[in-house]
Amino acid sequence: MSNEAGASNAVSASQNIYDTAEFFQGYIKLDRQVLGLDGAPEWPQLRAMLPNIQESQILDLGCGMGWFARWAKQQGAAHILGLDLSQNMLDRAVELTNMDNIEYQRADLNQLNLAPGKYDLVFSSLAFHYLVNLKGLFAEIQQALKPGGKLVFSIEHPIFTGPTRGGIISDAEGRLIWPLDAYHREGLRHRNWFVDGVEKQHHTLGTYINTLFQSGFELTDFVEWCPTEDDLKKFPGWEKEFIRPTFLLMGAIKKCS
Amino acid sequence: MSNEAGASNAVSASQNIYDTAEFFQGYIKLDRQVLGLDGAPEWPQLRAMLPNIQESQILDLGCGMGWFARWAKQQGAAHILGLDLSQNMLDRAVELTNMDNIEYQRADLNQLNLAPGKYDLVFSSLAFHYLVNLKGLFAEIQQALKPGGKLVFSIEHPIFTGPTRGGIISDAEGRLIWPLDAYHREGLRHRNWFVDGVEKQHHTLGTYINTLFQSGFELTDFVEWCPTEDDLKKFPGWEKEFIRPTFLLMGAIKKCS
Repeated sequence: MSNEAGASNAVSASQNIYDTAEFFQGYIKLDRQVLGLDGAPEWPQLRAMLPNIQESQILDLGCGMGWFARWAKQQGAAHILGLDLSQNMLDRAVELTNMDNIEYQRADLNQLNLAPGKYDLVFSSLAFHYLVNLKGLFAEIQQALKPGGKLVFSIEHPIFTGPTRGGIISDAEGRLIWPLDAYHREGLRHRNWFVDGVEKQHHTLGTYINTLFQSGFELTDFVEWCPTEDDLKKFPGWEKEFIRPTFLLMGAIKKCS
Repeated sequence: MSNEAGASNAVSASQNIYDTAEFFQGYIKLDRQVLGLDGAPEWPQLRAMLPNIQESQILDLGCGMGWFARWAKQQGAAHILGLDLSQNMLDRAVELTNMDNIEYQRADLNQLNLAPGKYDLVFSSLAFHYLVNLKGLFAEIQQALKPGGKLVFSIEHPIFTGPTRGGIISDAEGRLIWPLDAYHREGLRHRNWFVDGVEKQHHTLGTYINTLFQSGFELTDFVEWCPTEDDLKKFPGWEKEFIRPTFLLMGAIKKCS
């Protein structure tokens, strides 16, 4: 069955951890779910990558509870379509953002089939590092953008997804280190995050960037999020962000052919 | 005193480890010095980033013994100017590549002053990670390129330069790991490489890429060098390259304003 976006509603091969109760009950207590965009420390820098969205057609991939859709509507966007694999998330999104010109549909981002030349902006927050098929994803996004349209997205940084086992450790002298052991071995990583066995996909920086290039994008924005000194005063625990980057934010414009 | 390139011949604030006898005696025995470009495993991918260099004006920053200059001349480049801080290197370069239309000058890449709009290609192999002043460097290169001209360079990867102490270590279970402990703390790193106290400058990926953007470049090439399975059969020791990347190769085109 295909929907307005042409996205498949079929059951996905992707792990849908957000629809397991134990994970979801932990996840919805995160600041970024309770407080929305203002609870996400990387949001100001991600927002700075956005074009003017007045009257824009926007697609939000991995829309979660719809915090971005609501914000975009308030900024004057014409229409926002949010896609997510998790029915839990979509139910919350509908409940929280019951506004005109915001729509939600269930879809697996590994298997998108989007309307051509429709969107001014494709946005995605912390979703793509779950996906196997970046090549198909970026090609699909590129064809769904208007000429000059923009893709803005955040991911877990490849340095963060790289280790076969995550978590900061101490070396023999007590120095805190991030144990990178398999940067160039792309693929599945298991993490303990609220529950055991959360599945993420490690791709190198080269794979993200070259897949953008090969899909017809110009890279225009690249931010490895890091706290400021002021942030550290408020959140001393963020000192660990200097050890290794957690979030990578990128912006890319559809090149005119 | 200024020379043809306008580069300063003044004694530099940069460490000039290549002009210390102990370092140099070790360094010149590396495959990439003995065999030239064919001894550098990343060369095929760096070469693939080069534009057609027939009749080109080329600037080689950190030219070393002139292996690239000689190759470029053989490919039909019109003129190559090689700059290096090391007098040892330049003496070897002159000795090895005494050809028409290749020139060498001594210069500190932290303090360049290049002729405007002169070059079709600026090339640099494994030099920029010694430099403090990327902003000045990329701005100077940008103004020295012709419109549409290209910068192609390799560096030690920011993951490689990041740790305060380099070197692969074993964790408590014997897993080999790269001990990243200070990725977001840019600046001086000391390494033991032939001698103690070799000084390198750690910059994040974000700093390299955003400095390119802010200097008026479009990023067009990005390769994190990694051996192939065939390479591993010949050089089993290169297995460690899968733990963390060593070399990063980038290409960027001067944007038309």
